[in-house]
Amino acid sequence: MRKDLLTIEALPVETILQLLDRSDYYLEFLKASGPLTTPCPLPSTSSGQALEKEGEFKILKGYTVANLFFEASTRTRTSFELAERRLGADVISLTPAVSSLAKGESVLDTILVLEAMKVDAFVVRHNVSGVPKFLSERLPDFVHVINAGDGVHEHPTQALLDAAELRAALGNLSGKRIAIVGDILHSRVARSNAWLLKKLGAHVTFVAPDTLMPRNAGEVFGIETTNNLDDVLHSSDAIMMLRIQLERQARGFFPSVEEYREQYGMTPERMKNSTALILHPGPINHGIELESEAVYGERSLVLRQVKRGVAVRMAVMEWVFN
Amino acid sequence: MRKDLLTIEALPVETILQLLDRSDYYLEFLKASGPLTTPCPLPSTSSGQALEKEGEFKILKGYTVANLFFEASTRTRTSFELAERRLGADVISLTPAVSSLAKGESVLDTILVLEAMKVDAFVVRHNVSGVPKFLSERLPDFVHVINAGDGVHEHPTQALLDAAELRAALGNLSGKRIAIVGDILHSRVARSNAWLLKKLGAHVTFVAPDTLMPRNAGEVFGIETTNNLDDVLHSSDAIMMLRIQLERQARGFFPSVEEYREQYGMTPERMKNSTALILHPGPINHGIELESEAVYGERSLVLRQVKRGVAVRMAVMEWVFN
Amino acid sequence: MRKDLLTIEALPVETILQLLDRSDYYLEFLKASGPLTTPCPLPSTSSGQALEKEGEFKILKGYTVANLFFEASTRTRTSFELAERRLGADVISLTPAVSSLAKGESVLDTILVLEAMKVDAFVVRHNVSGVPKFLSERLPDFVHVINAGDGVHEHPTQALLDAAELRAALGNLSGKRIAIVGDILHSRVARSNAWLLKKLGAHVTFVAPDTLMPRNAGEVFGIETTNNLDDVLHSSDAIMMLRIQLERQARGFFPSVEEYREQYGMTPERMKNSTALILHPGPINHGIELESEAVYGERSLVLRQVKRGVAVRMAVMEWVFN
Repeated sequence: MRKDLLTIEALPVETILQLLDRSDYYLEFLKASGPLTTPCPLPSTSSGQALEKEGEFKILKGYTVANLFFEASTRTRTSFELAERRLGADVISLTPAVSSLAKGESVLDTILVLEAMKVDAFVVRHNVSGVPKFLSERLPDFVHVINAGDGVHEHPTQALLDAAELRAALGNLSGKRIAIVGDILHSRVARSNAWLLKKLGAHVTFVAPDTLMPRNAGEVFGIETTNNLDDVLHSSDAIMMLRIQLERQARGFFPSVEEYREQYGMTPERMKNSTALILHPGPINHGIELESEAVYGERSLVLRQVKRGVAVRMAVMEWVFN
Repeated sequence: MRKDLLTIEALPVETILQLLDRSDYYLEFLKASGPLTTPCPLPSTSSGQALEKEGEFKILKGYTVANLFFEASTRTRTSFELAERRLGADVISLTPAVSSLAKGESVLDTILVLEAMKVDAFVVRHNVSGVPKFLSERLPDFVHVINAGDGVHEHPTQALLDAAELRAALGNLSGKRIAIVGDILHSRVARSNAWLLKKLGAHVTFVAPDTLMPRNAGEVFGIETTNNLDDVLHSSDAIMMLRIQLERQARGFFPSVEEYREQYGMTPERMKNSTALILHPGPINHGIELESEAVYGERSLVLRQVKRGVAVRMAVMEWVFN
Repeated sequence: MRKDLLTIEALPVETILQLLDRSDYYLEFLKASGPLTTPCPLPSTSSGQALEKEGEFKILKGYTVANLFFEASTRTRTSFELAERRLGADVISLTPAVSSLAKGESVLDTILVLEAMKVDAFVVRHNVSGVPKFLSERLPDFVHVINAGDGVHEHPTQALLDAAELRAALGNLSGKRIAIVGDILHSRVARSNAWLLKKLGAHVTFVAPDTLMPRNAGEVFGIETTNNLDDVLHSSDAIMMLRIQLERQARGFFPSVEEYREQYGMTPERMKNSTALILHPGPINHGIELESEAVYGERSLVLRQVKRGVAVRMAVMEWVFN
């Protein structure tokens, strides 16, 4: 009965709802100022009340979690690390620059070596799609793998945190209209969000130039697509802006930063012509896909997404180990 | 009633004395060999005696502290990390090379994102003067900022640790004569020390060539200045040598390493002609501003400064959170 | 009565056997799935039974251990870190890339500064032979130094873990025939293993081309040498393959990767013509010194060596502090 979190696509709705609910629980702890008290375990697993009072019960105590980020991401790695440590885990984090990969050690060797050192779970980010699944299949059943982003495939915890914040702001997501805007083609965030939001009954639209729209996106994900942001601006309950990799311009994916901003940026004018909530997975190109005022404005969920990220990852770690 | 430590200039003498006293307390723990016992909290905040016996009370337990070193410094960062962890904090350390700044994320975004993850205090080093203050103004009141060195502005904990060791060696600093020698122009250590030593009544002299002396230094800091180290050699109770950045020579700040050493180095001859205590914030250019024999000699406070550094930072962390 | 672990050469057999036995004890904890329970202290030092039940006693609690890897090695560093943390130590790890050495600080300054911060033990890897001993001589008696690999001199914990696994697989090593194959000349692993296996009565053969064989190896270590792997293939109880540094080819140590593999690789043919156990310190050049099937095959001890590495390092840390 091994538990991994590899994709949203294969995750049952009931599990998704359970994780969202549980992230609500952890979020309360993170919102309070003052010292973080020890969260109690799932009510079903023990008599939580007494343990919470003791403040000493930590559900990952005695477990070791390794964060393997073959692609750099301080933000996501720190979010996972804090989630793990706050649940009591012993945490190690490796990044390619400091790992033996420099000596030509393969990803599989790395993970088998760490498992032999008694690492109980791996959080893996890799620029090749499918690496977390590949590793999961080669690890013992009692070792867990959490996908922290693999190539252009999936980024499950990002989609869970986005859905949790959308649900907190909009209520039940059934029938809600959500636009995802920008470089869909290279975005695992867009893909995981499409799967998840569809499962919760939302109406999703991908907004991108043809060069940055996956082929047959509409059919594959059961969503709508458009090249025109202004078409969905008024009707959207929420708009998720994606980061544009500026280096893609050189490869011809878009003509210029100015033109991209003009067509796909959340400019001050567009902010006025919309009542949608604004999301962004970060890091943000200020002044390109999003204006600084919008980033920290009233309708922005950007920092709430970050806080929720820790709560969701606590919920996920708890779930895979439970 | 938010508490930061941004500058020595704005710190009341009473607070300075309180921090120095408290660092004496913590220093005793660090001096003992064997396992570090848990220091007890401020006597005023609880019945310390009983808690100390239990060995389980840690005043930063449940708090997360982030060390953000936008400028590399293993020594200072490690000193802060150990101080924080020994008080029970959950510690994360980020340096530019591993942070998302590589992706163009701004300093402000970085700190707001971390705060959203429930980071309760930030220790910030940055090569631009004023960054800690800038960040402090944009953070909630219950979040603390400790300046670990900002540009050529201030380095408050270094001045506190220097004063604490000077006081331990010389007693009351009122009327004591202290020379600060070297690249004053680019030194936040010299500036913080000048402010602090003046507040404690010491007589401070800056010793530097004109090219490395701040304009109007005498007026600004209420101290004396000279180009001639030998003028103060006999009268000084303590001499603080600053690190000379060798790369400054290429920019014309001094003619040659040999000439700099000849005029501003603590050479064996000068050691003989003086009874002053020797300080250096490190890392030391052996054989330039200080001879190796002097670094680890009897009159040197160099390693005591290091030990005191941890004690002072424990006192500072306790103070900002109290 | 200071305790360091600097070499195998100077380590008494009784101590070696004590460390191997103790690693057996720790290994049991690492083999179990589920949360790692706290190992109990040496039976001789306290009434272990009761403490183990409490699960709170950690023998390195209150101690700080610094891992100073002046040469990169994620694998060995992580193994030490986990061993230290699992015994309750506060752990800091520094690598050249992030240390002040970039500013020209000497190795000695670095270690004296850390000692002043109350670091109780140093695990040191350095590309210059003798650095751990040099540092040990300059540190106070109550500070411990563990050699994690110095130049081409020694790598004591690797030899201990190899011997422990060989003993677990073969029983008493007296009279057992063990071949060490490859770049002996540049290998501290080979040297430490030769010293240790000889002390335990094993019959050791170095197998290498003349260009990669230390001069007078036979006399110095009291072992046999040969250029021909096939000569020892049938008679060996275990064969330890060493990593070949591919960059040595350019310097003329061997003519080509293909030729090296042909003569000194554990090819599928050689695997068939031998019943020997296979060891490798890692990281492995798959398809050169060892085939992938052999790495994870039945006769391979490779991953067991890794697990044993953590157990041995726990035993070593316990021993130096006891």
